[in-house]
Amino acid sequence: MAYPEGLVDLIENLHQQGVNEAIICPGSRNAPLMLALVRHGGFRCYSIADERSAGFFGLGRALKSKKPVIICCTSGSAGLNFAPAVVEAFFQEVPLIVLTADRPAEWIGQWDGQTIYQENMFGKHVKHSESFRPFQANQLVAKAMAFPQGPVHMNVPIAEPFYPAKGEVLPEIRESQAVQSIINQTYDTDFQVNPGESLLITVGQRPFNQKENDLFAALAAQGIPVIGDATANLPAVCQLHHDLIWADESRLPLYQPEFHIHFGKSFVSKRIKQFLRGHKPKTSWLVHPNPIEQPDPFQCLTRVVRADAQVVLESLCQQTLRGVSAIFDAKNRVEEVQEAFFQEESWSELGIYNRLIRAIDSTECEVHVANSLAIRYINWTKEVFTQSEVFSNRGTSGIDGCLSTAIGASQQTNKLVISLLGDVAFQYDRNALWNSYVGPNVRIIIFNNAGGGIFSILDGAKDLPELGEFMVTKQTFRAKNTALDAEIDYYEANNWSELISVLTHFLEPSSRPKMLEITTDLSENTQELQRYMSLFKH
Amino acid sequence: MAYPEGLVDLIENLHQQGVNEAIICPGSRNAPLMLALVRHGGFRCYSIADERSAGFFGLGRALKSKKPVIICCTSGSAGLNFAPAVVEAFFQEVPLIVLTADRPAEWIGQWDGQTIYQENMFGKHVKHSESFRPFQANQLVAKAMAFPQGPVHMNVPIAEPFYPAKGEVLPEIRESQAVQSIINQTYDTDFQVNPGESLLITVGQRPFNQKENDLFAALAAQGIPVIGDATANLPAVCQLHHDLIWADESRLPLYQPEFHIHFGKSFVSKRIKQFLRGHKPKTSWLVHPNPIEQPDPFQCLTRVVRADAQVVLESLCQQTLRGVSAIFDAKNRVEEVQEAFFQEESWSELGIYNRLIRAIDSTECEVHVANSLAIRYINWTKEVFTQSEVFSNRGTSGIDGCLSTAIGASQQTNKLVISLLGDVAFQYDRNALWNSYVGPNVRIIIFNNAGGGIFSILDGAKDLPELGEFMVTKQTFRAKNTALDAEIDYYEANNWSELISVLTHFLEPSSRPKMLEITTDLSENTQELQRYMSLFKH
Repeated sequence: MAYPEGLVDLIENLHQQGVNEAIICPGSRNAPLMLALVRHGGFRCYSIADERSAGFFGLGRALKSKKPVIICCTSGSAGLNFAPAVVEAFFQEVPLIVLTADRPAEWIGQWDGQTIYQENMFGKHVKHSESFRPFQANQLVAKAMAFPQGPVHMNVPIAEPFYPAKGEVLPEIRESQAVQSIINQTYDTDFQVNPGESLLITVGQRPFNQKENDLFAALAAQGIPVIGDATANLPAVCQLHHDLIWADESRLPLYQPEFHIHFGKSFVSKRIKQFLRGHKPKTSWLVHPNPIEQPDPFQCLTRVVRADAQVVLESLCQQTLRGVSAIFDAKNRVEEVQEAFFQEESWSELGIYNRLIRAIDSTECEVHVANSLAIRYINWTKEVFTQSEVFSNRGTSGIDGCLSTAIGASQQTNKLVISLLGDVAFQYDRNALWNSYVGPNVRIIIFNNAGGGIFSILDGAKDLPELGEFMVTKQTFRAKNTALDAEIDYYEANNWSELISVLTHFLEPSSRPKMLEITTDLSENTQELQRYMSLFKH
Repeated sequence: MAYPEGLVDLIENLHQQGVNEAIICPGSRNAPLMLALVRHGGFRCYSIADERSAGFFGLGRALKSKKPVIICCTSGSAGLNFAPAVVEAFFQEVPLIVLTADRPAEWIGQWDGQTIYQENMFGKHVKHSESFRPFQANQLVAKAMAFPQGPVHMNVPIAEPFYPAKGEVLPEIRESQAVQSIINQTYDTDFQVNPGESLLITVGQRPFNQKENDLFAALAAQGIPVIGDATANLPAVCQLHHDLIWADESRLPLYQPEFHIHFGKSFVSKRIKQFLRGHKPKTSWLVHPNPIEQPDPFQCLTRVVRADAQVVLESLCQQTLRGVSAIFDAKNRVEEVQEAFFQEESWSELGIYNRLIRAIDSTECEVHVANSLAIRYINWTKEVFTQSEVFSNRGTSGIDGCLSTAIGASQQTNKLVISLLGDVAFQYDRNALWNSYVGPNVRIIIFNNAGGGIFSILDGAKDLPELGEFMVTKQTFRAKNTALDAEIDYYEANNWSELISVLTHFLEPSSRPKMLEITTDLSENTQELQRYMSLFKH
């Protein structure tokens, strides 16, 4: 076999820089890459046939390991199926190393099979893109890990033959070929808030971080409102139900800060964005070591503070600060309304989410929440996640890989990994379960309302004659049939007594993965949610 | 509602130029586009939730209508899920109009939801890309229909609100705004073959065309070998089993032509490509009105003949030509071997394909064949399709949308539309059935060998210890469970008697779509195929 020169060395180089997981999609052109990864011995390798799902599985791994994960595929459209995950990784700032096998350059455009224009195929949605050249230093790990972290792409032209002869071994790794590339960054050091100005801290999506959370909690204890969605993974004392507070538009002027600091990335809630756009603080900081472009979701940015969140928080805790106190009063009012509302518990998604959060959060789980309605509900319920980390693909907020990301994240942990998603998100990504890595710690909870429920709650959309056919897109597939295929224990709940009777057992440790399909009525969900929301409008 | 200016006029303009079908994927940002399409009245609109499948469904429609079909989606990663179908359309040269809704430009990179870099998101894989501007002439139809035909992309920034008030009507179409853009092309006129030189005609993938086929048949009757895969849709007299003839390498010099003319696009068979690369004709033409780049799959190209195939064929039929006659002798030998081999009919895929082709081709069907093993088997069997048109996504030869393309093609026809595919291709694209357009004329035949069977027949791959886990990627999903979801009548065959007892009934017209899952053993398939192939090697 004329095994491609330098491939085993590339893989060894990546391994020396800390990469140790690879998702490999079956193909012939990428077989030499597969062999180099599998036979290296230092990589945990996963084989997944649907590249769209494989990409998100890799994203889930990298979210957990906080190291670059390899996703590797054959030539042609295979790599394009990685694109949704690559773009999510780009905007969620998660390191991925995409290795696409390709034909040698002279065969591009020659009507050879599985040949497309692969160079730069991810456009602006990778941080770096290069073509493989044997024994050349590469910047894959350095670029993926430099802030903002994100995906990088190497296109690897490979000529036939792809397979070693029977018993033939791969070439030996050359000695001392490992080049480690480090990108230095400079950070800001001055974090002085203008004395006496009222402060509001907002926190967008971020991974759970205990040290930071202790500091956030200390600020909250000082009377500084720290607000964030469930995806901000803030401590309980910072979970102020801000989206419901902001629903009462008459009081918004009371909440206007003079000084605003934002940590983390984006918000799910539109209201907080619209509020700050309409009630601009004099000063608004974005804390980020090095953001893509200069994001200004609140349209009031005055400074990008290039620093680690923890360093900034430590400085803030040393300063004498004054918070926007009206927010705490509002929080108490919201909680009183919630308390009363959730005593009834009608059979609708809002109440069910509330109940599920309480049950799930009684132990430390990892919760993966789909976009669209799922991620919104968990921002509205009375119950909040306090010990379970919440994940969601909010980089691009696509529906396309929620479940695959969860399955990826569920590897190499004994914690329960729970996927919360609607029937459309589930069916869209059901190939997440089409692999041999769905372990006993996986719990999938599907809210089946037979279509895309979010459209029914959007003002304007809900009255259109086209709603059912072209927006909700009613669907009749049941998760049950996929559970049969995937050999997942299946549970069903159509009312409170069914739910209550299965829930405890469902969340108990087991030897097989479990799926719970909860059926509700779309119009009842909508009515109940509208009734709830109206309680906070004045 | 501040309905976006000029959108209804864009849609009317496309309609005036002959576009009348649209695949619409549910979303909020693209709701104004959806409304313009649905309420126009001149479009057949389809609602499909999984954009990857929707893209291929649109490709299937365009393959049948031979007109540009609109595929329309919301902002964010939705459009990326179109990419596999867009790239297939690009290389298969099928017109598509991709309309992606986007945020207004000022919100890109601002951490707003579902916001990515959408401009030029398909890179070199669209023929043309532009941003929507109200009331400006667009080149979408002209560019999509000019040779080489292919996909074009318009990115459409849309600001909120997305929905009209209850009862509000869309703006009226402005008068006389329709601009029709035509791209002129010049064609060659001289098609004189060097007198006396031995001629071989090869035909790559092309749609069925009766007039051309009459001319191909006339050439064959004159002793000119016209060879092509099943995807060339040639008349029976031109189906020479060329891939089996070429298996006997000792005789290859006998088949070397002095003059070679190629029609259509690419070949599935590698052998014909390798043969011509190794036995170069003095002259080699590629007949194409205007190809992308200058494709030279045989590495012997001497001239691109820019012309319609029919015009060239008419000229050839007027000339006195001499064919490479040894090919016809070889064809007779191959057929004798086949005759003997298929009298046994062991329970393996090769024999089953042979039997199915005979059964299917007894009426005029449309047959959509998946990539990988499926498309190869139908080139090897004794039986050939003579009255059924054969489709296959050979532009990029991806596994990703075979079934969705078939479902798209099955609309608006009463002919049986038959999808032939393996279990991996089926599961990969099972969301093809997750819509309400799977009609009673659909027949899906799945060859379930519990994995990616093609790897088991590749020299080199089949002996690797990694074969099962990382190439075949054994899978246990059954099509049966998807049939339950999709309400498709399900049949199963595990041996000849089961197959024979269901086949006639399965292919009869019915009021519901039908699915047939045929289970075989991977190693028996491989052995039988090897035994067959060895018969042609000398």
